[in-house]
Amino acid sequence: MAKNAIVGQSGGPTSVINASLAGVFESCKRRGAGKVYGMLHGVQGLLERKVVDLSGKFPTAMDIELLKRTPSSYLGSCRYKLPDWDTPEGEPVYEKLFNLLNALDIGYFFYIGGNDSMDTIGKLADYGAHVGSDIRFMGVPKTIDNDLMVTDHTPGYGSAAKYIGVVMKEIIRDATVYGTNYVTIVEIMGRNAGWLTAAAALAKAEDCEGVDMICLPEIPFNVDRFVEKVRRMQALKPSVVIAVSEGVKLEDGRYVCELADDVHAVDAFGHKALTGTARFLANTVARTLDTKTRSIELSTLQRCAGHITSRTDITEAYQVGGAAAKAAFEGHTGEMVALKRISNAPYQCTTELHPISEVANLEKKVPLEWVNETRTGMLEPFISYALPLIQAELTPIYVEGLPHHIYQPD
Amino acid sequence: MAKNAIVGQSGGPTSVINASLAGVFESCKRRGAGKVYGMLHGVQGLLERKVVDLSGKFPTAMDIELLKRTPSSYLGSCRYKLPDWDTPEGEPVYEKLFNLLNALDIGYFFYIGGNDSMDTIGKLADYGAHVGSDIRFMGVPKTIDNDLMVTDHTPGYGSAAKYIGVVMKEIIRDATVYGTNYVTIVEIMGRNAGWLTAAAALAKAEDCEGVDMICLPEIPFNVDRFVEKVRRMQALKPSVVIAVSEGVKLEDGRYVCELADDVHAVDAFGHKALTGTARFLANTVARTLDTKTRSIELSTLQRCAGHITSRTDITEAYQVGGAAAKAAFEGHTGEMVALKRISNAPYQCTTELHPISEVANLEKKVPLEWVNETRTGMLEPFISYALPLIQAELTPIYVEGLPHHIYQPD
Repeated sequence: MAKNAIVGQSGGPTSVINASLAGVFESCKRRGAGKVYGMLHGVQGLLERKVVDLSGKFPTAMDIELLKRTPSSYLGSCRYKLPDWDTPEGEPVYEKLFNLLNALDIGYFFYIGGNDSMDTIGKLADYGAHVGSDIRFMGVPKTIDNDLMVTDHTPGYGSAAKYIGVVMKEIIRDATVYGTNYVTIVEIMGRNAGWLTAAAALAKAEDCEGVDMICLPEIPFNVDRFVEKVRRMQALKPSVVIAVSEGVKLEDGRYVCELADDVHAVDAFGHKALTGTARFLANTVARTLDTKTRSIELSTLQRCAGHITSRTDITEAYQVGGAAAKAAFEGHTGEMVALKRISNAPYQCTTELHPISEVANLEKKVPLEWVNETRTGMLEPFISYALPLIQAELTPIYVEGLPHHIYQPD
Repeated sequence: MAKNAIVGQSGGPTSVINASLAGVFESCKRRGAGKVYGMLHGVQGLLERKVVDLSGKFPTAMDIELLKRTPSSYLGSCRYKLPDWDTPEGEPVYEKLFNLLNALDIGYFFYIGGNDSMDTIGKLADYGAHVGSDIRFMGVPKTIDNDLMVTDHTPGYGSAAKYIGVVMKEIIRDATVYGTNYVTIVEIMGRNAGWLTAAAALAKAEDCEGVDMICLPEIPFNVDRFVEKVRRMQALKPSVVIAVSEGVKLEDGRYVCELADDVHAVDAFGHKALTGTARFLANTVARTLDTKTRSIELSTLQRCAGHITSRTDITEAYQVGGAAAKAAFEGHTGEMVALKRISNAPYQCTTELHPISEVANLEKKVPLEWVNETRTGMLEPFISYALPLIQAELTPIYVEGLPHHIYQPD
């Protein structure tokens, strides 16, 4: 009797994470898995026995197409860190998890996520080896942040980068319309790595002058120097458009958004949210220079804009899902599928496997040699790197004027 | 010798305002106008002799296609109110304008804009009649706000409404991903009229539960009642998504965003910007209820998202431009082209002419009988009204992964 497979999604959603789910699902079915289960809300949901049988959920090829085009995690997500298994509080958790997996007759376990999710895969694989389980645990990379080690890039990044390129072009158009002095500061996601903010550089083309400044979290930020740069830029052109990472930090390590004195940054649980950086800077510029300003937060739209995805990204997201299933069926465990770029022109990319230990809990930042001398723009190597990842589109299926999605499981 | 035409764009940009420009341009050429000039930055630019000859700017049909697909005002815009012509400070302005128009041998004058822009057309036509000028002045409607009288709807609204429907679906997907308590408040443009905020109701479909609350500026707002409604909603479902107009006002007439105590609302010129409503409400909800919150401002993206337009809207924007040219060549002046809906199923719409006095400086609000009993949602008549306006798409022309635009004139 064929073993069953189970798949979960974890961490922040992307607009292509369901393409990876489709890749895992179809590849498992094709390789003869029994049932394919989905964890609702990742491992956290699994611990609460929130599991759904996906086997009959996508009966037609059209369902798979809709799944690929549906943004945000179809199965729901979680931000749950497994305790270490060799601790008193950890052991019962793993016992419970493996009992659940064995009761479902699971042979193959897939987790689609970023650095934290790979930590989960690593711990489960370790515990599995410790107890002699034959379940294979495979990681499927996913994050708009593009901050995973060993993989050339992460599925989710290309579509988010494309979204940012598209909307920056539109924001620049909008901001120049009155020909008046105007400073627009756009806040982009990325707590420690500036890959997404750097994507604002893609807006520059023969039909667009591009953004005037890019502020990465990798570069220490100085508010006075920033304002002075804006002043000098605006002496040359009235409309200045700036892309700033939500995670820019002062030299003393504080986040710039912590300088804002309003209540924005603390939610009911006391969590400090990284938001308000652009607003703080826009207010500071308005007060200091004689100019109108506007701050724009791209917010969750940059990770879930299913209406404008990169076909390259969707295709690769599907591929890494399929490659993970292939590897698991071939006996691999405790590894993550990575994307390996073969060439840039023409763009060619394949997959390879890496031990989870090379990925979990590590972060890949933007190489500083890809940043220009003034630390406010990206050099050609970044453009060559990122441009192939935003190529081509996957048209949404429009129903009654809006993109149609597949409905979520209960 | 054929007279020349001149065309300007005024007020806030939209993603289809250039389709109206294309309509005016092509129709003028076809009807035998001499040259077609463009005012840069509207009447304000014209007064500074900032005029460009458009005649050779769009040599191929491809250029017209690009123009139609280029968001924001190709000619630039202004927010300039002409003084009354029968006043001491007004008369020299009109003399200068008409001297400029006569020097360019203008016979046809087109202004693409909203209520304020129609005020300009009205004044110019009046003054023209007063001095016996034979220049014809025609208004071409444009505004995402949909607040113009006499026209069934305004070009620009359909695309903005479609954008709002699309992103609300995506925001709702994103917000449910963790299955945790979460209140998302989305701020939508519209100072006095709630047409755009109402468009959030379009997100509801068989694949989307829709938004949970819609707050129009037409309905007096009470913060305590709002928080209490959110509390009751969240008792039934963890993720609550709310669409709120930037222009919601308290019973005493103050804008809700004025309750926020940070500096956001005043720019260097002392203008109070209507922004921060969603943030204020999200902070208030987070403080009062035990829940995480997020505020999202759709900001300028909702008016300039050229990557997701309604084909119906683009087609109608082009048509009203052409109809204005036709009317001017047939001798009409001091009028605006309006859209007249013939039927809903199938959707059919034609154009008609109205005197500017029926439009200028007036505002059309959302009928209160289209709002539900609890004043927090839209009824079926609104859906029937708005749904035809967001139908079909005009695919952007993608170059190197991003929508290509026509470059702006100098």
